Amino acid sequence: MKTKVTKRTGSGQKAESPTLCPVARAEAVVGDRWTVLVLRELFMASHRFEEIQAQTGGTPQMIAARLKQLEADGLVERRRYSARPLRHDYHLTAKGEAFYPVLLALRAWGETWVKAPEEGMSVRYTHRVCGKPAGLGPTCDGCGQMLRREDLSVAINPAYREEREKRWVAFKAARS
Amino acid sequence: MKTKVTKRTGSGQKAESPTLCPVARAEAVVGDRWTVLVLRELFMASHRFEEIQAQTGGTPQMIAARLKQLEADGLVERRRYSARPLRHDYHLTAKGEAFYPVLLALRAWGETWVKAPEEGMSVRYTHRVCGKPAGLGPTCDGCGQMLRREDLSVAINPAYREEREKRWVAFKAARS
Repeated sequence: MKTKVTKRTGSGQKAESPTLCPVARAEAVVGDRWTVLVLRELFMASHRFEEIQAQTGGTPQMIAARLKQLEADGLVERRRYSARPLRHDYHLTAKGEAFYPVLLALRAWGETWVKAPEEGMSVRYTHRVCGKPAGLGPTCDGCGQMLRREDLSVAINPAYREEREKRWVAFKAARS
Repeated sequence: MKTKVTKRTGSGQKAESPTLCPVARAEAVVGDRWTVLVLRELFMASHRFEEIQAQTGGTPQMIAARLKQLEADGLVERRRYSARPLRHDYHLTAKGEAFYPVLLALRAWGETWVKAPEEGMSVRYTHRVCGKPAGLGPTCDGCGQMLRREDLSVAINPAYREEREKRWVAFKAARS
């Protein structure tokens, strides 16, 4: 299941000598905020290019470059969903799915330290194993078990849902 | 303890409309690999500018810009350690320390998915609470408790130690 190490350079980053540091090695793959936003969208079940572009707010060039690199790095796979016209969408591989604990930790840090409490959480998880609110993880607020993505049910904050819907409407309007 | 939200733009990133997404909000602060590498060094107890520069491999300009932004974003504080000559070093604030679970998750993903097993782990943690190897977290391999940074003792892989020593020697040699 392990894939080969791929180094990325560009945007002012110089290629480094190889390092044993797993954080540096991980950041060579996911050390770009647009890449992380693309992964977030894939975890939110946005699989089509337009959805990912609309919800991240990137340009087509930026999003295409990130998806291509994520595919080269083995986190994303392109799947054909239509033959005529030829259309592809994007899905997480096992390596991409395994990034979920990082996103969960980023979410916890972001909710706690980069937002005001009165803004409200963007999503609330319920831990299906115990039926209680899961909180910010990595363990369940209700039962103390480790949170696994497949055990979480999501309630999206209405304000966040509206934000995403508006973004989609604005995106479609800008293209018509 | 919460600090105000600071947006960063630059390097081709456009300022977005405000979002409730905590991942996007976090990435506006830490969505740059050099920023994460600077944080890694601070967690590894490199507090002086030169040490951070040497171990991340960045240019002085790049590292200075990241440290300044991390200070503005409330993750890092500058402390004077000498009056004559005037010298400062860099320390994590509570907001910076709270980033540790993200680094731990990145480390786990990096060790598992971006390195070959034969390369060996860069550091091994022992969980002082139970005395057993902690593994990759977030819970202890030995006792199942959540890993807290203050409960971990670190053994650095000799190859990683050598890598870091070589980097420091090369850095000093390049400056003399």
